Amino acid sequence: MFSIDSHSVPVEKIRYDDRGLVPAIVQDYLDGTVLMMAWMNQESLQKTLETGETWFWSRSRENLWHKGATSGHLQKIRSIRYDCDSDALLIGVEQLGDIACHTGERSCFHQVDGTITAPPADTLSQLFQVICDRRDNPSEDSYTCKLFAGGDNKILKKIGEESAEVVMACKDDEPDAIAGEVADLLYHTLVALAHHHVDLKAVYRQLQERRK
Amino acid sequence: MFSIDSHSVPVEKIRYDDRGLVPAIVQDYLDGTVLMMAWMNQESLQKTLETGETWFWSRSRENLWHKGATSGHLQKIRSIRYDCDSDALLIGVEQLGDIACHTGERSCFHQVDGTITAPPADTLSQLFQVICDRRDNPSEDSYTCKLFAGGDNKILKKIGEESAEVVMACKDDEPDAIAGEVADLLYHTLVALAHHHVDLKAVYRQLQERRK
Repeated sequence: MFSIDSHSVPVEKIRYDDRGLVPAIVQDYLDGTVLMMAWMNQESLQKTLETGETWFWSRSRENLWHKGATSGHLQKIRSIRYDCDSDALLIGVEQLGDIACHTGERSCFHQVDGTITAPPADTLSQLFQVICDRRDNPSEDSYTCKLFAGGDNKILKKIGEESAEVVMACKDDEPDAIAGEVADLLYHTLVALAHHHVDLKAVYRQLQERRK
Repeated sequence: MFSIDSHSVPVEKIRYDDRGLVPAIVQDYLDGTVLMMAWMNQESLQKTLETGETWFWSRSRENLWHKGATSGHLQKIRSIRYDCDSDALLIGVEQLGDIACHTGERSCFHQVDGTITAPPADTLSQLFQVICDRRDNPSEDSYTCKLFAGGDNKILKKIGEESAEVVMACKDDEPDAIAGEVADLLYHTLVALAHHHVDLKAVYRQLQERRK
């Protein structure tokens, strides 16, 4: 599904700007996090397609750069798309080391009002981050913290309960109840993952592998 | 968590290019799909912050445009971030009508080798699309199609079975088994959602609401 060949993007059809550049948005293929935005010219796009790793054009240094060649944080191409005007690229990657930014942060987009916060991702991944934070910084009022305090027996009992509630909501064929019970089941499943220090990304990786 | 005030982005600290513009990447807040990329100048960023909806600068028409003002496909701001160089913006939005592109597609990034395909999102949302496609275009060989053919009783039995396997893997404290069993549980839960025509986004929306 994510295999790439040099025909998947018509290099010559891309509309480069008057500097010969096109913006390239780099996105994590697992959880949708936008990792960085950089610029490509035709040569760097060609090298990206040939090597299956990202190459960009540095506007300040005025040269091609192979992302991660020094740091080891290479980006393996999973998909390349272009937009309706053919003047922007969207590149799905597997980010080696899970670090894209030169600051050591995962994503270059980590600034909000001068403070550093985790980059946005899909809903489930965001929720998983919050749950892991509750695990590592417990507070007495938090329901999530109470689950962690109860350990496997408390958490796993909830998985049994919530999965039974999904079954009942489906049997009743009530869309709102189904969405609500599935939300409950997913939340408690994330708590179980966090309790056992298994990353949600490991689950996503398994699901991606099966699709191949 | 997603509340925004005009102080969240220091408008004057953003590094606009020699045309006074900064690229703005617009991302769906639920599933991480990149919907479009457009350009902002300082005035459009200011209006975006003030109104809580996206405003861009059109390079071709040389004027401000309020995204969705004509089509109704407004973008409600959920978060704004900027990158490590302060020269690109990442805007999390709730996309009204679930259509961002003027072609009627959900995302502007729908082109791959000249053909139109669904835009990338997080792993679970991608998998959900595949499952819904199997539901709507059944083929005999597919395990997913056999589940749909068996209806609720076949699908829901699997949810009971897989949730019990998550419980056992956690009790054994085996990380690989936990990731594998959670992957199985998530997959069968998505099949149940698809069978009842409940969108995964309805589940994500519930989880986002609870975080407020």
